[in-house]
Amino acid sequence: MATISDIYGHGHADRPELNSNFNVDYVIRYVVPAKERDEAEAAFIQLITALANAGFATEVRAGGDKTSLLVFVRIASDDLLRAQIYRSRLQDYLYGIRATAPPSRRNLGGQDVDLRAYFADEPISEAERLRLAYLLITKPQNEGGAGITPRGDNSAAAATTTTTTNTKVARDQWKYVAGIFPLHDHAFNRAWIKTWSTKYMLDAADLTAIRDKFGEKVAFYFAFLQSYFTFLLFPAAFGFVAWLLIGQFSWFYATVNCLWSVVFFEHWKKKEVDLAVQWGVHGVAQIQLPRPQFRFEREAPDPVTGEPVKIYSPFRRLSYQLLQVPFALACVVALGSLIALCFAIEIFMTELYGGPFKQYLTFLPTILLTVFMPLLTAVLTTFAERLTNLENYETQDAHQAAFVQKVFVINFITAYLPIFLTAFVYVPFGKVLVPYLDVFQITAQRLAGESKTDPAVTQTGFQVNPHRLTQQVIYFTVTAQIVNFCTEVVVPYAKRKVFKAVKSAQEEMSSRGHETVHIKDVPEEAAFLRRVRNESGLDVYDVTIDYREMVVQFGYLSLFSVIWPLTACSFLVNNWIEARSDAMKIAIGSQRPIPWRGESIGPWLTSLGFLSWLGSLTSAAVVYLFRSSNPYGADHSPWDIRAWALLLSILFAEHLYLTVQLVVRYVVDKLDSPGLQKERAERFALRKRVLAESLGVPEVDKAIGPNSKEL
Amino acid sequence: MATISDIYGHGHADRPELNSNFNVDYVIRYVVPAKERDEAEAAFIQLITALANAGFATEVRAGGDKTSLLVFVRIASDDLLRAQIYRSRLQDYLYGIRATAPPSRRNLGGQDVDLRAYFADEPISEAERLRLAYLLITKPQNEGGAGITPRGDNSAAAATTTTTTNTKVARDQWKYVAGIFPLHDHAFNRAWIKTWSTKYMLDAADLTAIRDKFGEKVAFYFAFLQSYFTFLLFPAAFGFVAWLLIGQFSWFYATVNCLWSVVFFEHWKKKEVDLAVQWGVHGVAQIQLPRPQFRFEREAPDPVTGEPVKIYSPFRRLSYQLLQVPFALACVVALGSLIALCFAIEIFMTELYGGPFKQYLTFLPTILLTVFMPLLTAVLTTFAERLTNLENYETQDAHQAAFVQKVFVINFITAYLPIFLTAFVYVPFGKVLVPYLDVFQITAQRLAGESKTDPAVTQTGFQVNPHRLTQQVIYFTVTAQIVNFCTEVVVPYAKRKVFKAVKSAQEEMSSRGHETVHIKDVPEEAAFLRRVRNESGLDVYDVTIDYREMVVQFGYLSLFSVIWPLTACSFLVNNWIEARSDAMKIAIGSQRPIPWRGESIGPWLTSLGFLSWLGSLTSAAVVYLFRSSNPYGADHSPWDIRAWALLLSILFAEHLYLTVQLVVRYVVDKLDSPGLQKERAERFALRKRVLAESLGVPEVDKAIGPNSKEL
Repeated sequence: MATISDIYGHGHADRPELNSNFNVDYVIRYVVPAKERDEAEAAFIQLITALANAGFATEVRAGGDKTSLLVFVRIASDDLLRAQIYRSRLQDYLYGIRATAPPSRRNLGGQDVDLRAYFADEPISEAERLRLAYLLITKPQNEGGAGITPRGDNSAAAATTTTTTNTKVARDQWKYVAGIFPLHDHAFNRAWIKTWSTKYMLDAADLTAIRDKFGEKVAFYFAFLQSYFTFLLFPAAFGFVAWLLIGQFSWFYATVNCLWSVVFFEHWKKKEVDLAVQWGVHGVAQIQLPRPQFRFEREAPDPVTGEPVKIYSPFRRLSYQLLQVPFALACVVALGSLIALCFAIEIFMTELYGGPFKQYLTFLPTILLTVFMPLLTAVLTTFAERLTNLENYETQDAHQAAFVQKVFVINFITAYLPIFLTAFVYVPFGKVLVPYLDVFQITAQRLAGESKTDPAVTQTGFQVNPHRLTQQVIYFTVTAQIVNFCTEVVVPYAKRKVFKAVKSAQEEMSSRGHETVHIKDVPEEAAFLRRVRNESGLDVYDVTIDYREMVVQFGYLSLFSVIWPLTACSFLVNNWIEARSDAMKIAIGSQRPIPWRGESIGPWLTSLGFLSWLGSLTSAAVVYLFRSSNPYGADHSPWDIRAWALLLSILFAEHLYLTVQLVVRYVVDKLDSPGLQKERAERFALRKRVLAESLGVPEVDKAIGPNSKEL
Repeated sequence: MATISDIYGHGHADRPELNSNFNVDYVIRYVVPAKERDEAEAAFIQLITALANAGFATEVRAGGDKTSLLVFVRIASDDLLRAQIYRSRLQDYLYGIRATAPPSRRNLGGQDVDLRAYFADEPISEAERLRLAYLLITKPQNEGGAGITPRGDNSAAAATTTTTTNTKVARDQWKYVAGIFPLHDHAFNRAWIKTWSTKYMLDAADLTAIRDKFGEKVAFYFAFLQSYFTFLLFPAAFGFVAWLLIGQFSWFYATVNCLWSVVFFEHWKKKEVDLAVQWGVHGVAQIQLPRPQFRFEREAPDPVTGEPVKIYSPFRRLSYQLLQVPFALACVVALGSLIALCFAIEIFMTELYGGPFKQYLTFLPTILLTVFMPLLTAVLTTFAERLTNLENYETQDAHQAAFVQKVFVINFITAYLPIFLTAFVYVPFGKVLVPYLDVFQITAQRLAGESKTDPAVTQTGFQVNPHRLTQQVIYFTVTAQIVNFCTEVVVPYAKRKVFKAVKSAQEEMSSRGHETVHIKDVPEEAAFLRRVRNESGLDVYDVTIDYREMVVQFGYLSLFSVIWPLTACSFLVNNWIEARSDAMKIAIGSQRPIPWRGESIGPWLTSLGFLSWLGSLTSAAVVYLFRSSNPYGADHSPWDIRAWALLLSILFAEHLYLTVQLVVRYVVDKLDSPGLQKERAERFALRKRVLAESLGVPEVDKAIGPNSKEL
């Protein structure tokens, strides 16, 4: 991997290979395993033929290692590109995404019309070109594409092979295609990173630039991040003041915080639609890319259109979807018991245990968590994936949304359960439950032969540690964020360094025995090819991981910030860095993403709403439980808490929340916005045109006069 | 008023005046008060001129009484009608209500196209004709209408005068116009009533017939009634079985009942949209008729279209809308204290009091309720109206919805509060509260000088009457429904009979002093005119009253049927009659309604959803409170009830309800329906046409081939 200063440092002027992509649209990485050389070579010829038939110009160069090739692909003729874009825009119009159709290609005389003027008016963005090029590569051959699907590709585009009757064969055919990726525009990336390191806020122009380069899906993430960052300013300032003046567990802070999260959620919901309208992608979710793995029960003609439609009973799917309930329970039980166990050990070690090896044994829960948590999470994620496959969605988006939903359950438990345990089990019931931890004592005694309980504990009795809850929230909202940042930025970098070292060592070792294969590049290409080989080894960027991080963060703010009002301040700092490091990750740490379209942040919106709502419950409960003058006092047994008053405050808080949400939604709906204005302007122009066509121009001027009700 | 047998009896063949409306579109009832004769006559000439200018043919006849005239109005030329309908359909297309535009009136050569073929393909229904005729009568003169607004008309159509700068003048000008109404199609009505008395269910054809005669707004009511009736079959059967086998206060019944109401609500929500699509009115809510009373703060050009727009700050409106909270509180306090007072007196009288006049005093609460309830309701309704006026909505629909919302609060309290009091105050707290009713005792003693408490009561102590709750539910779900039916059907009939008698007596008396004015009709018109004069004296049909009744009824089922599972059986019988009596009310008891369009049951949908949700809370609470083995036993003091367990069951029931609602919504969404199919077919045809225009026919056949992703 190139380092930042490598690519974006002052020495850049000397590296012309970063300034041009030689008009390459995509690079296909093709792997030729030594053992299957003949098969792979035959398939390679098919690959080049398919690409050529679909209208691509290709160039082949050696890959970074012995066994791989790089195929450089470009749409050969501008006419083909324009035809593809014309059809795509026409389809957008048919689905109501564009207000106006592109001009008819055939005029009344039956002659083809020159569309140059049209494309001069509505130019093709880089994202549009790359998206359609990718679709052309992956579209089945009988639809005019090359029908190439990268190995193990679950992404949207691979999908279009459904129509080939033997999908399996088609996928096997391209099993040597290891990846298809566009090349970075490093000149843009450099400017992007440079701008961001000097300004605090992204403006609309920045977002549009991201959208034109990386597509709406990525642009939506940055738009969300930006909105969230701006909104965080308020709770950060308010939280700071509250921390100074009011302290923890304040009704007032909880109310303001809930109100803030409602306003943020409703604002984003509107903003999302607004951006989609501004970017001309409102409604693209209708144009769904089918999933190749979709299994249909039968094919029947559509009663309306007569087209054959693949049918899978939604009720059968529902029956599989109901498996989510046991799945969620399994997650709670598996992850919950691990967390509870570690929690119990930790309390025992820090607050009860006085035997030998205490200084080492204190780390036991951390070790257990570090070892078993990723293991359990991986197992459960695999389950989630299987379950989602069982649910057998027709489209990539639906599949992705269902998967995200399940992953959210896992994330929810790992992220928030420890705090829930402290707040709602350890503190109120600690005095009752902790003595039972003697079971560890006995175990320890058995193992150690003989040992003694901390005499201080046995004499004074166990005391609930009053600061544990606050410490835990600070850990999750500060320490964990920093750790997270490191794993996201530093670890992949180190990983790649190590892999590279291992690989070159391996090659060196293997080359000792055999004849050495040295890649000899033409000198004028050498630097460029080095760069492309480097990019081909990078990770594929997955925006859902970044969303997940932000949504989980929002959850801490909404659910637990009443415990530590400085939470938002920490997040504010973190997110300023996060936005830059995410940009860097895309620019340097990943292959350039395929610029997919999207009209929202997708399934994460539901998660945000859920967390915001849950915040009203937990805040009320936390405030009620910890508000009392002496919450940690010796007399504070759980039975003192009047359960009905607790439930009543939760019930009240929740319904207040829901009512406020209705009001906020109503207010937000009334606000005007650029997207709405654009939509109205388009509709007005359309109506004017249609009226002019139907009634004649003078009538229209009358009809759209000041008092008209017609428009 | 004609009786049923008058109009629909066997003697009908002899009454040709019922078989034809002589092509009259509307009848305008014009009142000429004796004192303002000159003014009224001048305005009458203006009326006739305005009608003639707008393109109406008119005929004038004497009204039913000395002071009124009947103006028969008809759109004079078919071309005018067609032009109106053309424009209306074009507007529908522009708003996305119709999938296809009517053919352009001007072809490419600039010549007007003959639209006869178009209207042969898509014929004009009676409702469409009448609606556009009414709009033409009421539309301002500068928009080509006659600008006539009936006195005190708050209905949608009066609205279009907003554009005349001095609305006040325009409204004063027509203050002698007492009403504008279409004439009944008695042949249709007769067939309608006849069919209904022989079949149990309305089918789609019946609903379409209603829609073509009375417009979508009325048709939606009958569609709702039909859907509700069909859905009632299940809880009626299940409730009967539950009543036989399980008894009252059963968890199982409550769960099934809540599930049923969720399913019904979600089903109707879908059905509503589906019907709107089938009837071609999906989206008509966008074409809003402005409210003449709307006051704007300023006029500013729309930033997009440049048209001047009347602006009223939504935030100012919101501040007025917040007044709904004190309004609702005022309703609760005013109605609540009346109900609570009567309730207390009743309990005191029936269960404590043993003094003199007991047999008369028992009626005191009923008398109090009968006198003060309508008074209070009327006062509060006036408040609701003023509040809604303050909120100053731009459109009739928004105004109506806001008003309905407030009226619903009043209805909610009057309908359900008595049962709430019994279930959640009297039964659990009766033993504690009832002794305080001694205040009546003391009052009674003061008034009577001396009296004695029932010795039985003082000796044994007060006992909560275990059957009061059930009796009350039975009263509201059976007795009150019958009473309601009577007030709806019998009272108006009697009222009109009495009025008529009084009027003829008055006229007879006055004719003794003065010379008698005898109306002399031409013999061939006499019967027809008698019929029209009769219709002109009928009430204007208001569908919201019928909706209210059904929604309140649904509330009993959802909130309290767990107390008496036979509730649904009673409603099933009631609604069978209700549907017929409502039809009769429209056919005989009211003027023919102006056939407005609508795309839903409007604000009542929200009320239904609210009641359905609230049902989950009350059912859980009732079951929890009354389920215990000996709920009315002497030992049952309120403090025995574990408040937290009650709250927990409510909380649990509510969230279970909300979860189930999500699932049901998901399932219902997956179901196919005729409306959806129609929409898909239209969209498919549209796409095919556009593709053909853009790409040429052979390309399209390829594009919409079996494997196409394009459409």
